[in-house]
Amino acid sequence: MRISVLFSGGKDSSLSALLMEPLFEIELVTCCFGLLPNGELAAKTAKELRFPHRVLSLEREILEKAYEKIMKDGFPKSAINYIHEKAIETLASDPEVKFIADGTRRDDRVPVLSISQIRSIEDRLGIQYICPLKGYNRKTVSILVERYLRIEEGPSENTPKADYETELRELIRQRHGEEKIKELFPAHIQSHVLSRKELP
Amino acid sequence: MRISVLFSGGKDSSLSALLMEPLFEIELVTCCFGLLPNGELAAKTAKELRFPHRVLSLEREILEKAYEKIMKDGFPKSAINYIHEKAIETLASDPEVKFIADGTRRDDRVPVLSISQIRSIEDRLGIQYICPLKGYNRKTVSILVERYLRIEEGPSENTPKADYETELRELIRQRHGEEKIKELFPAHIQSHVLSRKELP
Repeated sequence: MRISVLFSGGKDSSLSALLMEPLFEIELVTCCFGLLPNGELAAKTAKELRFPHRVLSLEREILEKAYEKIMKDGFPKSAINYIHEKAIETLASDPEVKFIADGTRRDDRVPVLSISQIRSIEDRLGIQYICPLKGYNRKTVSILVERYLRIEEGPSENTPKADYETELRELIRQRHGEEKIKELFPAHIQSHVLSRKELP
Repeated sequence: MRISVLFSGGKDSSLSALLMEPLFEIELVTCCFGLLPNGELAAKTAKELRFPHRVLSLEREILEKAYEKIMKDGFPKSAINYIHEKAIETLASDPEVKFIADGTRRDDRVPVLSISQIRSIEDRLGIQYICPLKGYNRKTVSILVERYLRIEEGPSENTPKADYETELRELIRQRHGEEKIKELFPAHIQSHVLSRKELP
């Protein structure tokens, strides 16, 4: 039973894959618009985690609509949620895909789908959507990550990651320069997974 | 890292334990008021699942308050939720217990704690509360159960199970007879886990 896990190379999507490993056949999927080498970056992490990996190209139009949203709102929430929803829809439209998962935690706000968005995707596209970390709080996730994964952390502008935000930031950099990014995205610590920790 | 999984011998709590098995040291805990041999029943299932098991006695006063609630309401929701909350609090007051889990699914309504009840228990009692199936819908749980567990199913009055409901039903039977049970509890299909399915 194969599950496609939306994979950014970050700790939440990596831990999600580890959690489902005993019950599903895992495939990691990284969504890209082609602005940055996100696919290669995530492929390297996937290899270290020992999971099969593929890159899914998303329509450039999705990024353009997300760009319109963030420029209109002045903050990234609805733009990122929009990309996330479209990424799941794109993946779900593959007839081979029956189960989709992502790294959403209990306390996450972005990207997160509402229960009605989830049910709509499941019903329309005939897939099951799973958030294996949805019942885990931030503290428990941190403890599990510390125990099972080797990570590097740093400010978001310097830490390589293959999530939706990096390409949206890149598009804004190209059109408006560095200053605009600082204005639109709150500064936060980003993490990137290096490998599994091998337990004794 | 030990986790105490609230265990009724049903498919949701069993699947929860299987899901967390690779990352935690599992202990199954069955809560009992002593009206029925729920502890022995659950111990037998736990042995088949190959997890350590213990019985936690709950204060009889909790059952009496739940009884008052169901008699007042005319349906079991708040009575069952009340027992569930008190069971987690009782377990959390054990200083050895740091992580508690249960079998709550995405679409469950009873027993289910609100996010503020969960945060209150975590903050007051210094534990982390995890619902490993919270991001799984009913259909996916059914598929996983079918694949990994051997179960028996039947109407709730005939299927042995070690959940809160069975002892609350028993108390009502003792005080008011069979008819009152049918009046208060909606008829539903109950399941009981027999063992793991050994995969080829």
